[in-house]
Amino acid sequence: MSKLHFASDYQEGAHPAILKRLADTNYDGYPGYGTDPVCGSARERIREACACPGAGVHFLVGGTQTNAAVIGALLKRWQGVIAPDTGHIASHEAGAIEHGGHKVLPLPQTLGKIRADQIRDYCRLLFEDGNRDHMVMPGMVCLAHPTEYGTLYSLEEMTAISRVCREYGLPLYVDGARLAYALACPANDLTLADLARLCDAFYIGGTKCGALFGEALVVPDPSLLPHFFTLIKQEGALLAKGWLLGIQFDELFRDGLYERIGRGAIEAADILRKGFEDLGAELAFDSPTNQVFVRMRNEDLKALEEVTEYSFWEKSGEDHTIIRLASSWATRPEDAGTLIRALSS
Amino acid sequence: MSKLHFASDYQEGAHPAILKRLADTNYDGYPGYGTDPVCGSARERIREACACPGAGVHFLVGGTQTNAAVIGALLKRWQGVIAPDTGHIASHEAGAIEHGGHKVLPLPQTLGKIRADQIRDYCRLLFEDGNRDHMVMPGMVCLAHPTEYGTLYSLEEMTAISRVCREYGLPLYVDGARLAYALACPANDLTLADLARLCDAFYIGGTKCGALFGEALVVPDPSLLPHFFTLIKQEGALLAKGWLLGIQFDELFRDGLYERIGRGAIEAADILRKGFEDLGAELAFDSPTNQVFVRMRNEDLKALEEVTEYSFWEKSGEDHTIIRLASSWATRPEDAGTLIRALSS
Amino acid sequence: MSKLHFASDYQEGAHPAILKRLADTNYDGYPGYGTDPVCGSARERIREACACPGAGVHFLVGGTQTNAAVIGALLKRWQGVIAPDTGHIASHEAGAIEHGGHKVLPLPQTLGKIRADQIRDYCRLLFEDGNRDHMVMPGMVCLAHPTEYGTLYSLEEMTAISRVCREYGLPLYVDGARLAYALACPANDLTLADLARLCDAFYIGGTKCGALFGEALVVPDPSLLPHFFTLIKQEGALLAKGWLLGIQFDELFRDGLYERIGRGAIEAADILRKGFEDLGAELAFDSPTNQVFVRMRNEDLKALEEVTEYSFWEKSGEDHTIIRLASSWATRPEDAGTLIRALSS
Amino acid sequence: MSKLHFASDYQEGAHPAILKRLADTNYDGYPGYGTDPVCGSARERIREACACPGAGVHFLVGGTQTNAAVIGALLKRWQGVIAPDTGHIASHEAGAIEHGGHKVLPLPQTLGKIRADQIRDYCRLLFEDGNRDHMVMPGMVCLAHPTEYGTLYSLEEMTAISRVCREYGLPLYVDGARLAYALACPANDLTLADLARLCDAFYIGGTKCGALFGEALVVPDPSLLPHFFTLIKQEGALLAKGWLLGIQFDELFRDGLYERIGRGAIEAADILRKGFEDLGAELAFDSPTNQVFVRMRNEDLKALEEVTEYSFWEKSGEDHTIIRLASSWATRPEDAGTLIRALSS
Repeated sequence: MSKLHFASDYQEGAHPAILKRLADTNYDGYPGYGTDPVCGSARERIREACACPGAGVHFLVGGTQTNAAVIGALLKRWQGVIAPDTGHIASHEAGAIEHGGHKVLPLPQTLGKIRADQIRDYCRLLFEDGNRDHMVMPGMVCLAHPTEYGTLYSLEEMTAISRVCREYGLPLYVDGARLAYALACPANDLTLADLARLCDAFYIGGTKCGALFGEALVVPDPSLLPHFFTLIKQEGALLAKGWLLGIQFDELFRDGLYERIGRGAIEAADILRKGFEDLGAELAFDSPTNQVFVRMRNEDLKALEEVTEYSFWEKSGEDHTIIRLASSWATRPEDAGTLIRALSS
Repeated sequence: MSKLHFASDYQEGAHPAILKRLADTNYDGYPGYGTDPVCGSARERIREACACPGAGVHFLVGGTQTNAAVIGALLKRWQGVIAPDTGHIASHEAGAIEHGGHKVLPLPQTLGKIRADQIRDYCRLLFEDGNRDHMVMPGMVCLAHPTEYGTLYSLEEMTAISRVCREYGLPLYVDGARLAYALACPANDLTLADLARLCDAFYIGGTKCGALFGEALVVPDPSLLPHFFTLIKQEGALLAKGWLLGIQFDELFRDGLYERIGRGAIEAADILRKGFEDLGAELAFDSPTNQVFVRMRNEDLKALEEVTEYSFWEKSGEDHTIIRLASSWATRPEDAGTLIRALSS
Repeated sequence: MSKLHFASDYQEGAHPAILKRLADTNYDGYPGYGTDPVCGSARERIREACACPGAGVHFLVGGTQTNAAVIGALLKRWQGVIAPDTGHIASHEAGAIEHGGHKVLPLPQTLGKIRADQIRDYCRLLFEDGNRDHMVMPGMVCLAHPTEYGTLYSLEEMTAISRVCREYGLPLYVDGARLAYALACPANDLTLADLARLCDAFYIGGTKCGALFGEALVVPDPSLLPHFFTLIKQEGALLAKGWLLGIQFDELFRDGLYERIGRGAIEAADILRKGFEDLGAELAFDSPTNQVFVRMRNEDLKALEEVTEYSFWEKSGEDHTIIRLASSWATRPEDAGTLIRALSS
Repeated sequence: MSKLHFASDYQEGAHPAILKRLADTNYDGYPGYGTDPVCGSARERIREACACPGAGVHFLVGGTQTNAAVIGALLKRWQGVIAPDTGHIASHEAGAIEHGGHKVLPLPQTLGKIRADQIRDYCRLLFEDGNRDHMVMPGMVCLAHPTEYGTLYSLEEMTAISRVCREYGLPLYVDGARLAYALACPANDLTLADLARLCDAFYIGGTKCGALFGEALVVPDPSLLPHFFTLIKQEGALLAKGWLLGIQFDELFRDGLYERIGRGAIEAADILRKGFEDLGAELAFDSPTNQVFVRMRNEDLKALEEVTEYSFWEKSGEDHTIIRLASSWATRPEDAGTLIRALSS
């Protein structure tokens, strides 16, 4: 039996509707760089889903390049970006933000999140500092929803963060690499329309949420990012055959597919969470979305490894390891059951 | 009747074998970032095609990001990259090289090409200059084959360039965005093995040559680019689902498809070149590959526009315009005939 | 006899008034970073000399860092800086502008200068180009006055350039490393007040014009360069003991010293120009300021070298060399006579 | 009575021997950019003081630019620099390191210092991490001696740090902005020769230690920094009149002046430390060099302010403030007594 695929949420290709449309339109002959009508249609569907008819929508290939392009475009030379110290941009993008010339200003996280009052305190302290002109000024805030720990910001928390950002003139940018898994999660109360209302930019993840690849950046007020097309090109992030991104998001946002596509992943993750607890394992973090973090005895890892691919997260004392299992749009609920049963036996 | 697609060579999707394999493997479950066995197989096929068993092969999504990543990795801080003044990196990449911190050192082109003696003279003059330590030192040479004008370097020319590059310690890098159209062109005498022997790095273009997207960077001596995986990530150019690139190049290099895939494009372009000359139009540049440059009377553009999409190249005096038509792997030879007949009537 | 010092205009220390004031104030105890009252006084004197009471005035240590700081602050990420192809930023600053992320957009020079119509044509062509969003947009213009060839822009020329810059929204920046030698030159009709009226930023050179070091950047509308103090710091260009710059410019702008300090240099250069012509040598460029370019027979260089230090400029055919002699505020007019007499004998 | 100058250690000009030599040599006529014989002599004296005859010595104007130039030259594109989280480069250089493209990797400090085992643990953990290729690799270590808290590394501590750096192939760089105050401090057991033996680069601070401005970078193995002259130029940090730096360091290293010049500052600081303790104030940090950190009641600040300039450091609870007093080579020991007496009355 081949192993189960719980190592990450980007182990499979794309939703069948996307593959079908790619095949059906293969010889249609589109203009390049996202100037085609399919991208136009996808943009319109996304604007509608976000209840934001005036939004700018840009399609990029991957998350790191989207983050680098947006952050590089929003920050002034003397500014840095506030992020949780475990944020992807702070730790796992190989210094892409610094390569673009900017400092990441890390705030201590709790379960992958930061709070409005931390941002306010940081800004207040800095603006009061007599040496502030020798320091990097905060120029924006970057969060992930869901976070790298699979946790969610509540509407109340995000509203408070948005308020302090506007108070200090800091654009708020949300990395939604796994946004479908928030939208499909019962615990989530932040809608696409909320994000469009509270953020200055956010991206709707495709790569991990049913597309072959691609992220859709939404900019509620497009005047915030002048000449962004050229910046995408300069970043090396402009896809020649832009309609490939258009097709994917046009399908993902047809009839609400994107908001449904994560449901199976949440169901499977819930089965895993309950199953591991029933097996006596401890969940390392209280995360309600498609990522499941389990604190396992080192001696139990071998059994796990026989059934499924998984990710090492971190050591936890001498005898334990925290591992991560990620379900996805492609996970069959029965896979989760299979995994738990295999470990129970 | 819908228009013909001669505006560019990236107007269609992918070779059917690629689409089929994407569909067949959709749920196979691969590890990320190009560490999968499909990429491994594709790398092996490419090494074999290049007769370079020790080569490093990296898959990236597009040309500008490949150029930026390679050039940024090869140059030292005090160096710039020599290129023809019409080279893509010099003029049409939105300043991506400078954004990475390096100057493009342009040499005057002839039909999109530069010569070995120009490179030698430039280096000699600079190294003799008493103020050279206040100037940008040349650190590599970047050429395109075919060039932006559809022209080709001969084996003799490339050998001479390679020789002067090695004499001055300058890595030679070739942008092969349209390499399939060189390999399929009777006028070409530069093989993949020649490139691997004469260059320090070159990329085999997929986007314009039968793939949905993707370029395969070949580095004959991989020690030249240490930590390149991390640099690709830092550049925002690391595709999460790397096996998508693997699949495409594994198909393109199965049974020599890549070296055949441009043939129809060359046939179509030859039909266009002959057809336009028969119609009394002048070919603006003597280019033997898949790009056809025609100097047309402005008053004839309307008729052209009715039959096909095309690209404006530049004005040529008051009454004429140079236009570009590009065929591709997806062009049917009869399309070229259709175009010429339509203009003849 | 020690040699004469005509190799450059930065071979001597500072005007005695500066040395005296440095000694007199050595223990006065100033606050750092240019926040002291001496800098305040110097700023006020410069504003007055420029008839621009609202100008921002910043003191930096050297020319390359001033250029890099101003250009980096004025340009947006998608923009480059137009300059003559012989401009210092284009050729002799070791790629400092590109290191800051921006392309220098070179226009062909005549005697070191470019014309308003060249700038207009460049902008017009670019803004008409259908691919312009893939290209580097011009974001400012950078000129030197006097130029690297010792030539001068006339009031009429600079006015025309300023007009086209404002038409296209391009800030105009003038590098005045040798500005004192323009102001002291009878052929010059551009005053400090003209520069403040026509430019968006310019710097008044101290290093080559009587100071130990230092350049005074004038920004007629200071809102153009927000947070510039922090950018100077980020550039590594903020002098801890900023009052040292204040003292130097306070002295240079006391009682109009700066506008007088170049007179002896011009007199000496005129003696050289006349003397060389009388000796039958050819002046290579028609430059009226403190730099003298002579086309000499190679065989005559030895005699020259015995009397004075000089700069090699470029070869001119097989048998001739263009050399540069530079006078300065520290040159005694008799030194020029001494040189000519030595060569006559 | 004018206030005492304890706000910083860069409030006065230069040691009289420097001013005298500047005046004496004002018209001597030197070549530019540090190619003059005075720089040569200064380099030789520094090599001798460091017992390192083969060292490269470069003169730069200020600390931030020296740090940016060295770090930018030593790091590869995929690397960052380890530093204490309170290090100048991490917090007070306006993002200069990130502007150069590199991340500062902060380790938690104790009294401004980090330990060898922290560096080892950081490296070990990172090199073990399966995701390390997505992260910024440490490429060097940057410390200050004395630190920003006025504390000192012991010979034993620095030896241990040097050992772990060599074990992991990380160049060790020491920022010696206040090095004279370490060398003059009885508590210090790290000599210039030790630094040259244990470090890969370090700079000997002039700006805060008797020079008008200037730092002398020592590179025991000069091959570590190829083309560094050009990098200094590119950084905008190359002083045209380089001999001005040469003169200052030639004087500072004549007859051991540099190693003596901080003595009065240490004596004065000791008087302050004892005096404040006698007055019942608490020293905030145990620092033995020229910086004195006192935790004062907010209500006592007014009395302090009447006698001397001082620096605010940080708030300490509701009712207290930590302030910094800095003595310097220019402080007269009686100034410290004057201050304490004024506060005692």
